[in-house]
Amino acid sequence: MPDPLALPATGAWRPGDEPGHRQFFTFATDRRFALDSGTALSDVVVAYETWGRLDADASNAVLLCHAWTGDSHASGPAGRGHDTPGWWDDTVGPGKPIDTDKYFVVCANVLGGCQGSTGPASPHPDDGEPYGSRFPVVTIRDMVRAQARMMEHLGISRWMSVIGGSMGGMQALEWAVMYPRRVRSLIAIATCMQATAQQIAWGAIGRRAIGLDPKWRSGDYYDASPGDGPTEGLAIARMVAQVTFRSDNVFTDRFGRELADKATVGDTLGMWQRFEVERYLEYHGKKIATRFDANSYLSIGKAMDLHDVARGRGSLERAMARVTAPTLAVGIWSDMLYPAYQQRQIADILQARDVPVEYVEIDSPHGHDAFLINSDQLAEPIEQVLSTAAKSML
Amino acid sequence: MPDPLALPATGAWRPGDEPGHRQFFTFATDRRFALDSGTALSDVVVAYETWGRLDADASNAVLLCHAWTGDSHASGPAGRGHDTPGWWDDTVGPGKPIDTDKYFVVCANVLGGCQGSTGPASPHPDDGEPYGSRFPVVTIRDMVRAQARMMEHLGISRWMSVIGGSMGGMQALEWAVMYPRRVRSLIAIATCMQATAQQIAWGAIGRRAIGLDPKWRSGDYYDASPGDGPTEGLAIARMVAQVTFRSDNVFTDRFGRELADKATVGDTLGMWQRFEVERYLEYHGKKIATRFDANSYLSIGKAMDLHDVARGRGSLERAMARVTAPTLAVGIWSDMLYPAYQQRQIADILQARDVPVEYVEIDSPHGHDAFLINSDQLAEPIEQVLSTAAKSML
Repeated sequence: MPDPLALPATGAWRPGDEPGHRQFFTFATDRRFALDSGTALSDVVVAYETWGRLDADASNAVLLCHAWTGDSHASGPAGRGHDTPGWWDDTVGPGKPIDTDKYFVVCANVLGGCQGSTGPASPHPDDGEPYGSRFPVVTIRDMVRAQARMMEHLGISRWMSVIGGSMGGMQALEWAVMYPRRVRSLIAIATCMQATAQQIAWGAIGRRAIGLDPKWRSGDYYDASPGDGPTEGLAIARMVAQVTFRSDNVFTDRFGRELADKATVGDTLGMWQRFEVERYLEYHGKKIATRFDANSYLSIGKAMDLHDVARGRGSLERAMARVTAPTLAVGIWSDMLYPAYQQRQIADILQARDVPVEYVEIDSPHGHDAFLINSDQLAEPIEQVLSTAAKSML
Repeated sequence: MPDPLALPATGAWRPGDEPGHRQFFTFATDRRFALDSGTALSDVVVAYETWGRLDADASNAVLLCHAWTGDSHASGPAGRGHDTPGWWDDTVGPGKPIDTDKYFVVCANVLGGCQGSTGPASPHPDDGEPYGSRFPVVTIRDMVRAQARMMEHLGISRWMSVIGGSMGGMQALEWAVMYPRRVRSLIAIATCMQATAQQIAWGAIGRRAIGLDPKWRSGDYYDASPGDGPTEGLAIARMVAQVTFRSDNVFTDRFGRELADKATVGDTLGMWQRFEVERYLEYHGKKIATRFDANSYLSIGKAMDLHDVARGRGSLERAMARVTAPTLAVGIWSDMLYPAYQQRQIADILQARDVPVEYVEIDSPHGHDAFLINSDQLAEPIEQVLSTAAKSML
């Protein structure tokens, strides 16, 4: 068994990394946890963080769902195991829009992830070796089912609100479809009811890039030296994503046609001389490999491609007919990855069934990542949803 | 020296492939051909095709400039060395909008290409071995300078029109800037005056993917068995491009969330089970490797990233001030790669200097490739430009 405290081949959390705040819940110790793929997992760990205090009647709980390479650290400073502050630190905290003085806020690392929850880098219960290529395909619904087990563990029977952006929004939608009586309000941001062909295309390219990396070794690279896993394939996959997370206009404003390393290389014309935008993409590509596991990137990416609330439910309309939670759907006009029409579709399909729904558009040129960058624009709409939901919980 | 008739490691034209129509012009046999990068080439070959007859006063010549993986075969059926009909077969031919009964039409394979003109797969004059990693970076301006030599060889002193889409439009713009007295009209389609950061980003990702392929071997793979070159890296690079060439809407209409190979694999959830859109992208990825050389893909891609009519000319305005040719700028509303604002910028900058200019937008959901798919919408505007230019040549 590899040293659990050793740095992994590509970035993944290891026991000992926890900054104290992170908690762990293990289930499926007796009975296996069935997955959509027809397989099952044992000894499933959900790593999660909480902020605020749960009311005596457990009526003030809010679930946050994270995006692709996010984790449970939605709020709070950087620290051991988290090289950056919480991904929604401006939005979640005392006196902030998701006010932890009022609400008990929970965020769990998704199944398939690499920040404490069971994923491909986790030890297989049979032999203690990392799952690697043995890790089964998981779906957004599997992630939500694991969160539902955590919910029961926490003694919560209804979420005041389930909130998420991007893949977090996929989970939030599935929560409202799978467990309508457990969700009192829904905030779905920059997300979709089903992944489109173009979204799948971007995902497929990333998969191929990781698969091309000789160091990926079909997913069984965990015995590699630290940093000697499929870092280049993962970097390319991330570069594709990073372009789709941002926008043409902002890239032009920020990078234009500037050359990188100009001081050292001059401005001769070389095949591998980088433009500034390439340096930026490479930076993000390298960074992801230090903090995220390539197999988790594949696992979660595939879950997003498989995301389809209609799967096995007849149609989008029939699936969404299960949703009763008042809903805030949020789009971003500059989002090229999850274009705003997809969130308007969510609003339209609910409105047609008289579910209370509001559509709000973030006015930002930053593209998909505006749900992180310009979350200030969501302060008022989120506060409204939460205060209305709080009243309805009384 | 490798057998010139053997199939290359990735697709490139070899002597013997020519369908009869293709012609060759060699220059820089005495004096080297200087490149923007500060290096130079000897014995440069330009492969080109022509249609129609040149007038006695050489006043009816039209130059077509091809895009990334295009070649000189703009018109005519598939044949040896061309596995598809001409890339603008609907637009170029007898009685067609670019009427070869009236005009003498020329299309040259670009410098750096792999369809007969000098490129990385060509024999280095020093040793007869392929250039491979020795091939220098070329620019759009270098491509145009090589075409100018071909023009002189053909006895043409002015083009009635220079026409191109995508990278072809970059060449057309540089023609009008570099040789204003040789260009009587300009048609620039789905192109730009300078590559943006986002365009460079897509190019950079493709470069990295080819570079990651162990079979690329820093560009010196020409001794590999047929098809055993960096086909997978090239495929990934092409997959990125293919998504940017098309559109979200059309991908949804055409592929939706259909699974490929459904009959054989069922609809279980597997990591490498393909959606139909993935099958489509892989098809295009594999196909490019049979007909195009990976090093040429890199070479031409870099030339596009380096494309900037302002480079060394002070500013876009000062560069474009050299253009005197009446211009038709064509955009496509659904083009995510070269968005329509870029062609409106071309029109605006010329209009500000009172150069006769018209902006036309192709109304198509097909994205960038609409300049090929919906070229019928350009029939009338092109005919107008050509008939006006023909009169001005009298």
